[in-house]
Amino acid sequence: MSRLVMKFGGTSVGDVERIARVARLVAAERKPGRALAVVVSAMSGETDRLVQLARGAAGEGAGSQPLSSAEFTDEYDVVVSAGEQVTTGLLALALRRIGVPARSWQNWQIPVRTDAAHSKARVAEIPEEEIGASIDSGVVAVVPGFQGVTSEDRITTLGRGGSDTSAVALAAALKAVRCDIYTDVDGVYTTDPRIVAKARRIEKISYEEMLEMASLGAKVLQTRSVELAFAKRVPVRVLSSFVEPGAPNPGTLVCSEDEIVEKQVVSGVAYSRDEAKVTLLGVEDHPGVAADIFGRLADANINVDMIVQSEARQPGLQNIVFTCPDRDAARAVEAIEGAKEKIGVEDIHLRRDVAKVSVIGIGMRSQVGVARTMFTALAQKGVNIEAIATSEIKISVLIDAAYTELAVRALHTAYGLDAN
Amino acid sequence: MSRLVMKFGGTSVGDVERIARVARLVAAERKPGRALAVVVSAMSGETDRLVQLARGAAGEGAGSQPLSSAEFTDEYDVVVSAGEQVTTGLLALALRRIGVPARSWQNWQIPVRTDAAHSKARVAEIPEEEIGASIDSGVVAVVPGFQGVTSEDRITTLGRGGSDTSAVALAAALKAVRCDIYTDVDGVYTTDPRIVAKARRIEKISYEEMLEMASLGAKVLQTRSVELAFAKRVPVRVLSSFVEPGAPNPGTLVCSEDEIVEKQVVSGVAYSRDEAKVTLLGVEDHPGVAADIFGRLADANINVDMIVQSEARQPGLQNIVFTCPDRDAARAVEAIEGAKEKIGVEDIHLRRDVAKVSVIGIGMRSQVGVARTMFTALAQKGVNIEAIATSEIKISVLIDAAYTELAVRALHTAYGLDAN
Repeated sequence: MSRLVMKFGGTSVGDVERIARVARLVAAERKPGRALAVVVSAMSGETDRLVQLARGAAGEGAGSQPLSSAEFTDEYDVVVSAGEQVTTGLLALALRRIGVPARSWQNWQIPVRTDAAHSKARVAEIPEEEIGASIDSGVVAVVPGFQGVTSEDRITTLGRGGSDTSAVALAAALKAVRCDIYTDVDGVYTTDPRIVAKARRIEKISYEEMLEMASLGAKVLQTRSVELAFAKRVPVRVLSSFVEPGAPNPGTLVCSEDEIVEKQVVSGVAYSRDEAKVTLLGVEDHPGVAADIFGRLADANINVDMIVQSEARQPGLQNIVFTCPDRDAARAVEAIEGAKEKIGVEDIHLRRDVAKVSVIGIGMRSQVGVARTMFTALAQKGVNIEAIATSEIKISVLIDAAYTELAVRALHTAYGLDAN
Repeated sequence: MSRLVMKFGGTSVGDVERIARVARLVAAERKPGRALAVVVSAMSGETDRLVQLARGAAGEGAGSQPLSSAEFTDEYDVVVSAGEQVTTGLLALALRRIGVPARSWQNWQIPVRTDAAHSKARVAEIPEEEIGASIDSGVVAVVPGFQGVTSEDRITTLGRGGSDTSAVALAAALKAVRCDIYTDVDGVYTTDPRIVAKARRIEKISYEEMLEMASLGAKVLQTRSVELAFAKRVPVRVLSSFVEPGAPNPGTLVCSEDEIVEKQVVSGVAYSRDEAKVTLLGVEDHPGVAADIFGRLADANINVDMIVQSEARQPGLQNIVFTCPDRDAARAVEAIEGAKEKIGVEDIHLRRDVAKVSVIGIGMRSQVGVARTMFTALAQKGVNIEAIATSEIKISVLIDAAYTELAVRALHTAYGLDAN
């Protein structure tokens, strides 16, 4: 018996007609010797509605927040998790309607155990004996994503977007051959098709590359789900939920590097506009200064990305440049501004109209000249590089945001990614 | 420690503001030595929305019904039960917001065990140790009404209106001193105040009287909940959820007969317009005829109420009159019409513009002349009686529907029920 987990997001199950289509997509995957489990999100809009109700009941609004997080999140989870429960019952009914044996499994029935970190819980354990035996007998299991229960049997949620993680965790527990994530796009692209018309769907991509793509702004799969798939070695396929059942729908397979025969030097070009650049001028150059600065930023819960250190004009002083999400920029400046004298910083500059563009590829490891191709392509278009960061399989540059599309297109062409 | 169960219906928890009011009503009942459990319905409109979704997913509509009841009701229960879950989380948050320790208890967490009759389940057992200890420690329990779980841990619902029954069952399990049912009326009235302006709120009414009132059309409490309260001897109070917390709100206490010192001869006047009268003329008068007729009606699932047998003009023949709910009338006629020859029935008449008016009171048992008062009052107003049925504590008459209000008012006055 080979097991397959399928996952459908909120827009895919947005109304009764779409749920009927999902049922047909599930039916099309049935065949002898295959067992199916389906993970579903709440109908689109439903989670937002429930979140608003919970906040209203807790008296949030107009800046007031009468309850502490500990007083709020456990019952918030009770309210919000009802959305997925509804979808599981509806899909089970829609499957039976077309003759497919099915039943819903609530998380407490399996049970999907998580830690007790309400509203951002992590899956700890999924005993697969009972649900596994049920799907092996030919009954499709329909499971609510995004949630679980603590060891005390209280309801938890995994946080927004946690349904992908639920699906991967269930696939790992069931030792499924694959986890198919149905979305509103038909796969992972070499870059954003809204910017580059010649962007191509990627057939196969490694977990590592996908992690870089996801965290760099290609919003196809939730980062945590890819990390989990990587750790548990679950092959994940991203494909469209809007094709007709039975029609070709290859999608993109996210898998181990060693399953990818033809390794691209660069698999994709990602970008992010949610960036800000903070420049600290005239920083005293002695041991412990950087630790002080980045310690303060960490305390303020600011996610620092690139860091560039350079000598200032005056001897004994240096300049430090770092980037962070644009929404954190004001708080980052504040965190340093307040302790300028104490740390030893002369001046602070903030620039918000910047973007980060990255090229990603596992082939980089064995190739030289990848960075040169990038810098040359950007220079030819007159794009100035403000900062550079590299990892084993990625090169990122910070540029003027106005040049984002131009840079993405130039790099897509330079690395031979354009479709014919 | 004395325990109290409070129950709030859908209109009482219809939005976040109303839930906040319910929280204040609960807070007003807190005092040292008292433990509280609150049973809630889904927010008004929510159950209907979920029922529609479930029917849509099952492909119902335009007369088609692709799924059998067995294929439909278990997952229907999964869908519909989500409504109450949402309310429990919201009310727990609203209570905490005003400083009252509270938590939601889903039925599977208690667990509230029912039989496996999905969509019309009956509560079998509620272990009270864990939830009882929790409320005794001062934490208000918020429990979803209308549902439970089978011994196989599948979700069940008790059918529409089952929240009253949930509340009474929980009160019985917790050995609560009382079960307070908050509704959109402030108690049980001697008759419908829309018909009789001088109708009075009843202070105390016996279970038996309340059962007659409920089944005769006074839609305050669900019949099953009163039956259960009667069987388990749980005092039930019906009161308004729309008064200000702390304001006087005595309601009506439904309790054992022996707790009622001043027994009214007649406690209330009830009526029902959902009645039809079927007359079978020239029925052969030999043993087994009545069994044949009412057997056929039972097979057709028709709820027969009054039955009157009388001799016809021709010797050896009789007339039989019975009443049933108006919505069943056409089917009742059909059930007999098809077998007219076989049974031996000459003709069938159907009259649909009839109403049933009843007077109810435990005092009737020890009083004579109650029926005479009724017939005299109706005769004085020129109201013709089409059929009569009596029980130990009730007299019902069938009359022309046009006279309903007139009859109710006349009886209310005749038995001295009018308020000063």
